[in-house]
Amino acid sequence: MRVLGIDPGLRNLGWGVIEVDGSRLRHVGNGICHSVGTELATRLLSLHEQLTEVLQRFSPDIAAVEKTFVNKDAVGTLKLGQARGIALLVPAQFGLEIGEYAPNSVKKTVVGVGHADKNQIAHMVKMQLPGVQLAGPDAADALAIAICHAHHQSHNRMKVRA
Amino acid sequence: MRVLGIDPGLRNLGWGVIEVDGSRLRHVGNGICHSVGTELATRLLSLHEQLTEVLQRFSPDIAAVEKTFVNKDAVGTLKLGQARGIALLVPAQFGLEIGEYAPNSVKKTVVGVGHADKNQIAHMVKMQLPGVQLAGPDAADALAIAICHAHHQSHNRMKVRA
Repeated sequence: MRVLGIDPGLRNLGWGVIEVDGSRLRHVGNGICHSVGTELATRLLSLHEQLTEVLQRFSPDIAAVEKTFVNKDAVGTLKLGQARGIALLVPAQFGLEIGEYAPNSVKKTVVGVGHADKNQIAHMVKMQLPGVQLAGPDAADALAIAICHAHHQSHNRMKVRA
Repeated sequence: MRVLGIDPGLRNLGWGVIEVDGSRLRHVGNGICHSVGTELATRLLSLHEQLTEVLQRFSPDIAAVEKTFVNKDAVGTLKLGQARGIALLVPAQFGLEIGEYAPNSVKKTVVGVGHADKNQIAHMVKMQLPGVQLAGPDAADALAIAICHAHHQSHNRMKVRA
Protein backbone atom coordinates (compact mmCIF):
# COMPACT_ATOMS: atom_id res chain seq x y z
CA MET A 1 0.00 0.00 0.00
CA ARG A 2 1.28 3.42 -0.94
CA VAL A 3 0.74 6.29 1.47
CA LEU A 4 1.03 10.00 0.65
CA GLY A 5 1.65 12.47 3.47
CA ILE A 6 1.15 16.20 2.99
CA ASP A 7 2.35 19.07 5.18
CA PRO A 8 0.28 21.99 3.87
CA GLY A 9 1.67 25.49 3.47
CA LEU A 10 1.20 28.33 1.01
CA ARG A 11 4.88 29.01 0.42
CA ASN A 12 6.18 25.47 0.94
CA LEU A 13 3.92 22.45 0.73
CA GLY A 14 5.80 19.29 1.75
CA TRP A 15 4.92 15.87 0.39
CA GLY A 16 6.23 12.37 1.02
CA VAL A 17 5.31 8.94 -0.32
CA ILE A 18 6.08 5.63 1.39
CA GLU A 19 5.32 2.01 0.55
CA VAL A 20 3.88 -0.05 3.40
CA ASP A 21 4.11 -3.84 3.44
CA GLY A 22 2.84 -5.15 6.78
CA SER A 23 5.10 -3.47 9.32
CA ARG A 24 7.82 -2.75 6.72
CA LEU A 25 8.14 0.80 5.41
CA ARG A 26 10.02 1.90 2.31
CA HIS A 27 10.69 5.41 1.06
CA VAL A 28 9.30 6.14 -2.41
CA GLY A 29 9.68 9.89 -2.86
CA ASN A 30 9.56 13.26 -1.11
CA GLY A 31 9.69 16.89 -2.10
CA ILE A 32 8.38 20.38 -1.64
CA CYS A 33 5.90 22.26 -3.84
CA HIS A 34 6.82 25.94 -3.91
CA SER A 35 3.97 28.23 -4.90
CA VAL A 36 4.87 30.43 -7.84
CA GLY A 37 3.47 33.91 -8.59
CA THR A 38 2.47 37.04 -6.72
CA GLU A 39 -1.32 36.69 -6.84
CA LEU A 40 -2.89 34.38 -4.26
CA ALA A 41 -5.03 32.58 -6.87
CA THR A 42 -1.99 31.98 -9.10
CA ARG A 43 -0.06 30.58 -6.15
CA LEU A 44 -2.91 28.22 -5.24
CA LEU A 45 -3.15 27.13 -8.89
CA SER A 46 0.58 26.42 -8.96
CA LEU A 47 0.31 24.31 -5.78
CA HIS A 48 -2.65 22.44 -7.30
CA GLU A 49 -0.70 21.66 -10.49
CA GLN A 50 2.43 20.49 -8.67
CA LEU A 51 0.52 18.33 -6.20
CA THR A 52 -1.54 16.83 -9.04
CA GLU A 53 1.75 15.84 -10.73
CA VAL A 54 2.89 14.13 -7.51
CA LEU A 55 -0.27 12.02 -7.40
CA GLN A 56 -0.05 11.19 -11.11
CA ARG A 57 3.58 10.15 -10.73
CA PHE A 58 3.35 8.09 -7.54
CA SER A 59 -0.27 6.80 -7.56
CA PRO A 60 -0.73 6.59 -3.78
CA ASP A 61 -3.58 4.46 -2.37
CA ILE A 62 -4.35 6.63 0.64
CA ALA A 63 -3.35 10.06 1.88
CA ALA A 64 -2.97 11.99 5.13
CA VAL A 65 -2.81 15.74 5.66
CA GLU A 66 -1.55 17.52 8.74
CA LYS A 67 -4.22 19.36 10.70
CA THR A 68 -3.44 23.03 10.66
CA PHE A 69 -2.28 24.58 13.86
CA VAL A 70 -4.80 27.33 14.58
CA ASN A 71 -3.29 30.26 16.43
CA LYS A 72 -3.96 33.91 17.15
CA ASP A 73 -2.49 35.05 13.86
CA ALA A 74 -5.78 35.13 11.95
CA VAL A 75 -4.21 36.32 8.68
CA GLY A 76 -1.70 33.46 8.83
CA THR A 77 -4.48 30.98 9.66
CA LEU A 78 -6.46 32.16 6.64
CA LYS A 79 -3.44 31.81 4.31
CA LEU A 80 -2.69 28.34 5.60
CA GLY A 81 -6.38 27.43 5.33
CA GLN A 82 -6.38 28.32 1.65
CA ALA A 83 -3.31 26.16 0.98
CA ARG A 84 -4.82 23.37 3.09
CA GLY A 85 -7.96 23.50 0.92
CA ILE A 86 -5.76 22.57 -2.06
CA ALA A 87 -3.91 19.90 -0.05
CA LEU A 88 -7.24 18.20 0.74
CA LEU A 89 -8.80 18.76 -2.68
CA VAL A 90 -6.15 17.08 -4.85
CA PRO A 91 -6.17 13.62 -3.15
CA ALA A 92 -9.99 13.81 -3.07
CA GLN A 93 -9.96 14.44 -6.84
CA PHE A 94 -8.04 11.17 -7.19
CA GLY A 95 -10.68 9.38 -5.11
CA LEU A 96 -8.37 8.83 -2.12
CA GLU A 97 -9.52 8.57 1.47
CA ILE A 98 -7.77 11.21 3.53
CA GLY A 99 -6.67 10.96 7.14
CA GLU A 100 -6.07 14.07 9.20
CA TYR A 101 -3.61 14.24 12.11
CA ALA A 102 -2.71 17.04 14.49
CA PRO A 103 1.03 17.87 14.57
CA ASN A 104 1.32 16.56 18.14
CA SER A 105 -0.28 13.27 17.19
CA VAL A 106 2.20 12.85 14.30
CA LYS A 107 5.13 13.59 16.61
CA LYS A 108 3.85 11.23 19.27
CA THR A 109 3.56 8.40 16.75
CA VAL A 110 6.86 8.98 14.96
CA VAL A 111 9.14 10.35 17.71
CA GLY A 112 7.32 9.13 20.83
CA VAL A 113 6.71 12.55 22.34
CA GLY A 114 4.25 15.28 21.38
CA HIS A 115 6.69 18.16 21.38
CA ALA A 116 9.61 17.05 19.22
CA ASP A 117 11.50 19.64 17.18
CA LYS A 118 12.15 19.52 13.42
CA ASN A 119 15.58 17.89 13.88
CA GLN A 120 14.16 15.05 15.92
CA ILE A 121 11.46 14.43 13.33
CA ALA A 122 13.98 14.38 10.48
CA HIS A 123 16.16 12.01 12.53
CA MET A 124 13.34 9.56 13.21
CA VAL A 125 12.16 9.69 9.60
CA LYS A 126 15.72 8.81 8.49
CA MET A 127 15.81 5.95 11.02
CA GLN A 128 12.56 4.49 9.72
CA LEU A 129 13.32 5.04 6.05
CA PRO A 130 17.01 4.13 5.69
CA GLY A 131 18.87 5.91 2.89
CA VAL A 132 16.20 8.59 2.41
CA GLN A 133 17.39 11.94 1.07
CA LEU A 134 15.15 14.65 2.54
CA ALA A 135 14.22 17.62 0.33
CA GLY A 136 13.83 19.77 3.48
CA PRO A 137 12.04 20.04 6.83
CA ASP A 138 8.58 20.28 5.21
CA ALA A 139 9.24 17.09 3.24
CA ALA A 140 10.45 15.37 6.44
CA ASP A 141 7.21 16.42 8.14
CA ALA A 142 5.20 15.07 5.21
CA LEU A 143 6.97 11.69 5.45
CA ALA A 144 6.31 11.69 9.20
CA ILE A 145 2.59 12.22 8.47
CA ALA A 146 2.66 9.31 5.99
CA ILE A 147 4.42 7.08 8.59
CA CYS A 148 1.86 8.14 11.21
CA HIS A 149 -1.01 7.27 8.86
CA ALA A 150 0.53 3.89 7.97
CA HIS A 151 0.90 3.13 11.67
CA HIS A 152 -2.72 4.03 12.45
CA GLN A 153 -3.95 2.03 9.45
CA SER A 154 -2.18 -1.17 10.51
CA HIS A 155 -3.21 -0.59 14.13
CA ASN A 156 -6.83 -0.31 13.06
CA ARG A 157 -6.59 -3.45 10.94
CA MET A 158 -5.14 -5.38 13.89
CA LYS A 159 -8.01 -4.19 16.07
CA VAL A 160 -10.48 -5.43 13.48
CA ARG A 161 -8.76 -8.83 13.33
CA ALA A 162 -8.57 -9.24 17.12
CA MET B 1 -17.76 41.25 -20.81
CA ARG B 2 -18.98 38.60 -18.43
CA VAL B 3 -18.15 38.92 -14.73
CA LEU B 4 -18.37 36.14 -12.15
CA GLY B 5 -18.68 37.08 -8.48
CA ILE B 6 -18.07 34.53 -5.72
CA ASP B 7 -19.00 34.74 -2.04
CA PRO B 8 -16.91 31.93 -0.53
CA GLY B 9 -18.20 29.67 2.24
CA LEU B 10 -17.79 26.01 3.12
CA ARG B 11 -21.47 25.28 3.63
CA ASN B 12 -22.88 27.77 1.11
CA LEU B 13 -20.76 29.22 -1.66
CA GLY B 14 -22.68 31.93 -3.53
CA TRP B 15 -22.04 32.73 -7.19
CA GLY B 16 -23.43 35.30 -9.59
CA VAL B 17 -22.74 36.12 -13.25
CA ILE B 18 -23.50 39.44 -14.93
CA GLU B 19 -22.95 40.77 -18.43
CA VAL B 20 -21.38 44.23 -18.63
CA ASP B 21 -21.76 46.43 -21.69
CA GLY B 22 -20.29 49.87 -20.97
CA SER B 23 -22.29 51.09 -18.01
CA ARG B 24 -25.15 48.65 -18.68
CA LEU B 25 -25.44 45.58 -16.48
CA ARG B 26 -27.50 42.47 -17.20
CA HIS B 27 -28.13 39.47 -14.98
CA VAL B 28 -26.98 36.14 -16.44
CA GLY B 29 -27.24 33.67 -13.58
CA ASN B 30 -26.87 33.18 -9.84
CA GLY B 31 -26.95 30.31 -7.39
CA ILE B 32 -25.46 28.63 -4.37
CA CYS B 33 -23.10 25.65 -4.26
CA HIS B 34 -23.86 23.54 -1.20
CA SER B 35 -21.01 21.31 -0.09
CA VAL B 36 -22.05 17.68 0.11
CA GLY B 37 -20.59 15.06 2.46
CA THR B 38 -19.32 14.77 6.00
CA GLU B 39 -15.55 14.71 5.38
CA LEU B 40 -13.90 18.08 4.81
CA ALA B 41 -12.02 16.87 1.71
CA THR B 42 -15.25 15.51 0.17
CA ARG B 43 -16.99 18.81 0.82
CA LEU B 44 -14.17 20.78 -0.81
CA LEU B 45 -14.25 18.39 -3.78
CA SER B 46 -18.00 18.90 -4.12
CA LEU B 47 -17.58 22.70 -4.09
CA HIS B 48 -14.81 22.38 -6.70
CA GLU B 49 -17.02 20.29 -8.99
CA GLN B 50 -20.04 22.56 -8.69
CA LEU B 51 -18.04 25.75 -9.22
CA THR B 52 -16.26 24.19 -12.20
CA GLU B 53 -19.70 23.51 -13.73
CA VAL B 54 -20.67 27.16 -13.23
CA LEU B 55 -17.58 28.32 -15.12
CA GLN B 56 -18.11 25.77 -17.89
CA ARG B 57 -21.74 26.80 -18.28
CA PHE B 58 -21.36 30.60 -18.19
CA SER B 59 -17.78 31.15 -19.51
CA PRO B 60 -17.05 34.37 -17.57
CA ASP B 61 -14.20 36.64 -18.74
CA ILE B 62 -13.14 37.84 -15.31
CA ALA B 63 -13.91 36.94 -11.72
CA ALA B 64 -13.95 38.52 -8.28
CA VAL B 65 -13.94 36.84 -4.88
CA GLU B 66 -14.90 38.39 -1.57
CA LYS B 67 -12.02 38.84 0.85
CA THR B 68 -12.68 36.76 3.89
CA PHE B 69 -13.52 38.52 7.07
CA VAL B 70 -10.85 37.48 9.54
CA ASN B 71 -12.09 37.37 13.11
CA LYS B 72 -11.25 35.88 16.48
CA ASP B 73 -12.90 32.56 15.63
CA ALA B 74 -9.75 30.84 14.38
CA VAL B 75 -11.51 27.54 13.63
CA GLY B 76 -14.12 29.39 11.55
CA THR B 77 -11.39 31.38 9.78
CA LEU B 78 -9.60 28.16 8.89
CA LYS B 79 -12.79 26.56 7.51
CA LEU B 80 -13.58 29.61 5.45
CA GLY B 81 -9.96 29.76 4.28
CA GLN B 82 -10.19 26.23 2.93
CA ALA B 83 -13.38 27.04 1.00
CA ARG B 84 -11.83 30.28 -0.21
CA GLY B 85 -8.87 28.32 -1.57
CA ILE B 86 -11.31 26.49 -3.85
CA ALA B 87 -13.12 29.73 -4.78
CA LEU B 88 -9.81 31.22 -5.97
CA LEU B 89 -8.48 28.03 -7.57
CA VAL B 90 -11.34 27.32 -9.97
CA PRO B 91 -11.33 30.67 -11.85
CA ALA B 92 -7.50 30.48 -11.94
CA GLN B 93 -7.80 27.03 -13.54
CA PHE B 94 -9.87 28.68 -16.29
CA GLY B 95 -7.13 31.32 -16.78
CA LEU B 96 -9.24 34.16 -15.38
CA GLU B 97 -7.84 37.21 -13.63
CA ILE B 98 -9.34 37.47 -10.18
CA GLY B 99 -10.19 40.61 -8.25
CA GLU B 100 -10.50 40.56 -4.47
CA TYR B 101 -12.72 42.93 -2.51
CA ALA B 102 -13.32 43.35 1.19
CA PRO B 103 -17.01 43.09 2.20
CA ASN B 104 -17.10 46.78 3.16
CA SER B 105 -15.69 47.80 -0.20
CA VAL B 106 -18.39 45.77 -2.00
CA LYS B 107 -21.12 47.35 0.13
CA LYS B 108 -19.73 50.85 -0.39
CA THR B 109 -19.73 50.37 -4.16
CA VAL B 110 -23.13 48.70 -4.45
CA VAL B 111 -25.14 50.26 -1.62
CA GLY B 112 -23.15 53.45 -0.99
CA VAL B 113 -22.30 52.72 2.63
CA GLY B 114 -19.81 50.26 4.13
CA HIS B 115 -22.14 48.72 6.69
CA ALA B 116 -25.25 47.70 4.76
CA ASP B 117 -27.19 44.64 5.89
CA LYS B 118 -28.13 41.65 3.73
CA ASN B 119 -31.57 43.10 2.89
CA GLN B 120 -30.11 46.34 1.59
CA ILE B 121 -27.64 44.44 -0.57
CA ALA B 122 -30.37 42.22 -2.03
CA HIS B 123 -32.48 45.35 -2.66
CA MET B 124 -29.71 47.20 -4.51
CA VAL B 125 -28.80 44.11 -6.51
CA LYS B 126 -32.45 43.83 -7.63
CA MET B 127 -32.47 47.54 -8.53
CA GLN B 128 -29.39 47.18 -10.69
CA LEU B 129 -30.38 43.87 -12.25
CA PRO B 130 -34.12 44.25 -12.95
CA GLY B 131 -36.10 41.02 -12.94
CA VAL B 132 -33.40 38.99 -11.21
CA GLN B 133 -34.55 36.03 -9.11
CA LEU B 134 -32.11 35.61 -6.23
CA ALA B 135 -31.23 32.07 -5.09
CA GLY B 136 -30.54 33.42 -1.58
CA PRO B 137 -28.49 35.95 0.40
CA ASP B 138 -25.16 34.34 -0.56
CA ALA B 139 -26.08 34.55 -4.25
CA ALA B 140 -27.11 38.21 -3.78
CA ASP B 141 -23.72 38.89 -2.18
CA ALA B 142 -21.99 37.17 -5.08
CA LEU B 143 -23.85 39.34 -7.60
CA ALA B 144 -22.91 42.42 -5.53
CA ILE B 145 -19.25 41.37 -5.78
CA ALA B 146 -19.62 40.99 -9.57
CA ILE B 147 -21.25 44.45 -9.80
CA CYS B 148 -18.47 45.91 -7.64
CA HIS B 149 -15.81 44.36 -9.89
CA ALA B 150 -17.55 45.59 -13.05
CA HIS B 151 -17.66 49.09 -11.58
CA HIS B 152 -13.96 49.07 -10.67
CA GLN B 153 -13.04 47.69 -14.08
CA SER B 154 -14.85 50.44 -15.99
CA HIS B 155 -13.53 53.04 -13.57
CA ASN B 156 -9.98 51.85 -14.20
CA ARG B 157 -10.52 51.89 -17.97
CA MET B 158 -11.81 55.47 -17.80
CA LYS B 159 -8.73 56.47 -15.82
CA VAL B 160 -6.51 54.92 -18.48
CA ARG B 161 -8.37 56.79 -21.24
CA ALA B 162 -8.28 60.16 -19.46
